[in-house]
Amino acid sequence: MSQDLPDYQLPEAGKPLGALSVRVREDADLVQLLTTLRDAGAQVVAINTFPATRGERDVVRVYDFEIHDFDPAAAAQLLSGLPGVAKVEARNTLGQIFGKRVIVIGGGAQVAQVTLGAVSEADRHNLRGERISVDTIALVGEQNIADAVRAVADLPRAHILILAGSIMGGDITTAIGEIQAAGIPVIALNMAGSVPDVADLVVTDPVQAGTMAVMAIADTARFTLDRQRGRRY
Amino acid sequence: MSQDLPDYQLPEAGKPLGALSVRVREDADLVQLLTTLRDAGAQVVAINTFPATRGERDVVRVYDFEIHDFDPAAAAQLLSGLPGVAKVEARNTLGQIFGKRVIVIGGGAQVAQVTLGAVSEADRHNLRGERISVDTIALVGEQNIADAVRAVADLPRAHILILAGSIMGGDITTAIGEIQAAGIPVIALNMAGSVPDVADLVVTDPVQAGTMAVMAIADTARFTLDRQRGRRY
Repeated sequence: MSQDLPDYQLPEAGKPLGALSVRVREDADLVQLLTTLRDAGAQVVAINTFPATRGERDVVRVYDFEIHDFDPAAAAQLLSGLPGVAKVEARNTLGQIFGKRVIVIGGGAQVAQVTLGAVSEADRHNLRGERISVDTIALVGEQNIADAVRAVADLPRAHILILAGSIMGGDITTAIGEIQAAGIPVIALNMAGSVPDVADLVVTDPVQAGTMAVMAIADTARFTLDRQRGRRY
Repeated sequence: MSQDLPDYQLPEAGKPLGALSVRVREDADLVQLLTTLRDAGAQVVAINTFPATRGERDVVRVYDFEIHDFDPAAAAQLLSGLPGVAKVEARNTLGQIFGKRVIVIGGGAQVAQVTLGAVSEADRHNLRGERISVDTIALVGEQNIADAVRAVADLPRAHILILAGSIMGGDITTAIGEIQAAGIPVIALNMAGSVPDVADLVVTDPVQAGTMAVMAIADTARFTLDRQRGRRY
């Protein structure tokens, strides 16, 4: 059941979660920042690196750390005294703001219609306190799409995939099996090719496909993909 | 100019880029993995942590590393002999697959229409070899939206933001100034409130707003936001 997909980067009841944005000079050491957090007992679940773009003197880089099960203000305090650290800001994590992600991949016209359904349905759940975001990429070609399907397994907080096209098969079908094995369910539009044969659910109307995908991962919906597996609408 | 926004996580001519997906047992040490890569000369630009969901024996966790300016196959070789490492797979990076990101935030109805324009335009550029993805979240309330706007600065590969609503101001307007300072331009729909006064560009038609946002960050378009700054369409 997709609702049970474990995800270190989403909020979990009773465990503090927070992000630290660390603005550093040339002499800061990423490994020292990381070991300082780890030695204090913080579990680091994500690190991102950005160039410094605000024009501050000597600041060359920004490291973002997402930490789990540790007070972010205490963590900020720990890092602020380290060599090369210019400024530490405690922030919300991307999971707190953008939540679970619905991923839509396929042809532009159909991706747009699926997204219309998914965004409208996510809006209704987000109004009730959830955080569900809808992320898309329009691509053409079997290999490009198969590569993107495989990459969904590496996307933080991706909880369901919708394939929006008119004909898909071959290596895309193989890639679907791989991401299903990684715990990510797949909804396909009704289309030519072998993709509908392996999808967890097949939906003809793209707006409904987007809507059902959001319902499948929402905590505030009574729709479970397990009861729908293999059906076609 | 948004095209010039530096981004460590996007492909750069002449510099190899790759991701490593490292499946580990309980005794693997993230810091050892990281120092091994760094000591060999690889620049690590992102790390993500996932629970192991494939059911392999003893594998408890997956670390994804994105490395810059170093051969990913050589890096995989380096990590595969370390304690606790069950399997290392070389992968495409998220930047190679999903590219630059257009972020759309606001009310469901308008986010959906802006996204329709952005996805259709991204499709046309992706057909010519670019990678542009369109990511959305539908939210309500000044503070929720302001927090999401600020978090765009922490989103990997976010290159432009569109605010899609009917009335936005207050802290959202303050947050826009902060992300503009971080190098991310903002397009707003024509709407009530102070947000249009600070946006880089104001567009009345949501489909056109999405289209222009993609054109502004595409390498294959002749549209530069610098020449449009402050205009209203």
